[in-house]
Amino acid sequence: MPDEVLNDISHRRYNPLTGSWLLVSPHRTKRPWQGAQETPSKNTLPSYDPKCYLCPGNKRAQGDSNPPYKNTFAFVNDYSAVKETQQDYHPETNKDDVASLLLQARPVTGRCYVLTFSAKHDATLADMTPEEIVPVINTWTRIYASHLSPSHPLNGQAAYVLSTIPENPDGEVTPPKHQLKNMQIFENKGAAMGCSNPHPHCQIWTTSTLPEEPGKELVNMRKYKSDTGRHLLGDYVKLELEKKERLVWENDSFVVVCPWWALWPFEVLIISKRHVRALVDLDDKERLEFAQAVQEVARRYDNLFETNFPYSSGVHQAPLDCTEEEAETSWFHMHFYPPLLRSATVKKFLVGYELMAEPQRDITPEQAAAKLRDCGGELYRKSLQ
Amino acid sequence: MPDEVLNDISHRRYNPLTGSWLLVSPHRTKRPWQGAQETPSKNTLPSYDPKCYLCPGNKRAQGDSNPPYKNTFAFVNDYSAVKETQQDYHPETNKDDVASLLLQARPVTGRCYVLTFSAKHDATLADMTPEEIVPVINTWTRIYASHLSPSHPLNGQAAYVLSTIPENPDGEVTPPKHQLKNMQIFENKGAAMGCSNPHPHCQIWTTSTLPEEPGKELVNMRKYKSDTGRHLLGDYVKLELEKKERLVWENDSFVVVCPWWALWPFEVLIISKRHVRALVDLDDKERLEFAQAVQEVARRYDNLFETNFPYSSGVHQAPLDCTEEEAETSWFHMHFYPPLLRSATVKKFLVGYELMAEPQRDITPEQAAAKLRDCGGELYRKSLQ
Ligand SMILES: O=P(O)(O)O[C@H]1O[C@H](CO)[C@@H](O)[C@H](O)[C@H]1O
Ligand SMILES: O=P(O)(O)O[C@H]1O[C@H](CO)[C@@H](O)[C@H](O)[C@H]1O
Repeated sequence: MPDEVLNDISHRRYNPLTGSWLLVSPHRTKRPWQGAQETPSKNTLPSYDPKCYLCPGNKRAQGDSNPPYKNTFAFVNDYSAVKETQQDYHPETNKDDVASLLLQARPVTGRCYVLTFSAKHDATLADMTPEEIVPVINTWTRIYASHLSPSHPLNGQAAYVLSTIPENPDGEVTPPKHQLKNMQIFENKGAAMGCSNPHPHCQIWTTSTLPEEPGKELVNMRKYKSDTGRHLLGDYVKLELEKKERLVWENDSFVVVCPWWALWPFEVLIISKRHVRALVDLDDKERLEFAQAVQEVARRYDNLFETNFPYSSGVHQAPLDCTEEEAETSWFHMHFYPPLLRSATVKKFLVGYELMAEPQRDITPEQAAAKLRDCGGELYRKSLQ
Repeated sequence: MPDEVLNDISHRRYNPLTGSWLLVSPHRTKRPWQGAQETPSKNTLPSYDPKCYLCPGNKRAQGDSNPPYKNTFAFVNDYSAVKETQQDYHPETNKDDVASLLLQARPVTGRCYVLTFSAKHDATLADMTPEEIVPVINTWTRIYASHLSPSHPLNGQAAYVLSTIPENPDGEVTPPKHQLKNMQIFENKGAAMGCSNPHPHCQIWTTSTLPEEPGKELVNMRKYKSDTGRHLLGDYVKLELEKKERLVWENDSFVVVCPWWALWPFEVLIISKRHVRALVDLDDKERLEFAQAVQEVARRYDNLFETNFPYSSGVHQAPLDCTEEEAETSWFHMHFYPPLLRSATVKKFLVGYELMAEPQRDITPEQAAAKLRDCGGELYRKSLQ
């Protein structure tokens, strides 16, 4: 147990990955709970929807047709947030020109992909087997490998995976026109997390700039390494395997924990046990074990409130264009940020105080981990069919 | 106009208050817009609800009764996120103890208030007149003044406002038991922003620690001041008054702008024109003019999509306990973060990419400001009655 008193008093916890604090109010869970009891939700979607723009063979918004793909299918988003080519823009910053200090902008280019997880419209990662999730991880790995800079320290690994992981017959990805800096894989699952199409899919945004969050993590991991000579997440994995209070699940290669600094009620982190810098470092066995970890998280989430659990998830790893030292500093992990707090309909809002002052949570990460440890086993929906 | 090209290309903009970047994708507004047309929403709430725990005279969850108050009423939250007294906790940090580095926690104490804006259950700031909002600002000011540390550089101003602003006959606030560091005023308005009771109210959380957001702002404002010798927000107000592209409204004492670095679609910032460090610096005329600015924002928001517009808002000012230099660095302002993007029901989700990488917005702040400039005038609901 962490010092017992933290179950009763309000306190701040430190997130060493981002270098920021959050407020924890454990006594707030003693608030009377008047929420409704939910009935377990079944899956009522068809396995093929003729109107879905992601189902195999269907037409998309701008007229392209999807191939009759079997498992995953990647394509460039018809409404990408960034484009590969656009007009140039070269602002100047000048200490004596106030506008150049306070109205700063920089161009960003890149390419945004959509990647389906399955041909089945009604599948989710929780319904799929680890073996069915492996093609998703393989595609992530191939896309990462084919976007690395020519001088990238992981080029050897990239060449190896590109020659060993089978090419996806449907929608192989071409290298970018200009070298890009970062690749962000993320999934928005459920209407509560802004997802407008339930067909299982993620997005991959590659950009010419390193975004804020992975940037902050790199800075803090580098600082920890130069202070201690060790890896922040390496030390953290060891600590959580010893303490066990926040551990949800583990296999040979990965741990699933509710991190000490979790902000979302049932936030979890999948972390590689050994020093994996990026997807291309994973071998066949590790990719399967990563798929197992992802499946465990998705299934336990659904089992927790017997519902199709919403979340946003994302992978952090070495940038596409980086130095030897930046690659060495990177430690592969995947975040899950789910909004639900007490039932299928009661969510935690990160609003006024959270936006204006700092994040605040009610149940402790230790309490969340205990609940997630307890809801393994078969997917609850299976027994409803 | 900012450099014209920024209306067409993806770019990052810099937020000098927080020192972070966000992604702007203006071309994404060209996405086909299939959303429904809304009908203007009327107000269907009663002006008194016997079940509301905020209406005058009603009983609250833990048995206390509200007085038959006339305008504002402040009380300590029955389920506060922080408490004034709790067990103590003194962790030690030690470079050689990994747990002490990676599992850091610090106790936080404080007091959380709820403050009603009006006795009327169905009023919102948009329905109230500036004169009716003045008592809210007065109560904020009195609470701030009565929580200042004994050595605070603004104590003279505090004593003056406490002797000149009329005491609220209902629910005067007592000084805290232990000196606190910060006071965060915020409002969560609308179900979309986690508000469970439509009775108009805000919250005020006072804490023994300086939260992340005001902390970051102080650091960045101090840095700007030491680099240039001037105030960041002072320079910014002048710039926006010259450029006018992001200006929504102004009176003698305040400007309302969609900031260059706005993250939420219709985010606005109210900034004092002169150097106001905190509420206690405002004179009678300025408090009325601040009420006018708040009312302008609330009414324009409601007029924009002819609906009861949700948002979270919050005031930033000098901490309750600070040095002369920190008070001097502070510049009074109020943020509004509204989630709606294109209509009363289509909101912007800050999810996967935003949480894992960095915030992304579609319409530019200049486009948002133009729309808000155009929807002044009478509250749309008035003509529906
Ligand atoms: O205290 P309330 O209004 O119940 O709670 C609301 O505001 C708080 C402060 O922003 C949030 O932490 C809660 O998630 C939200 O529901
Ligand atoms: O591209 P989508 O799925 O339409 O959009 C969704 O994810 C994006 C990336 O997190 C967000 O910017 C959008 O607000 C959200 O609705």
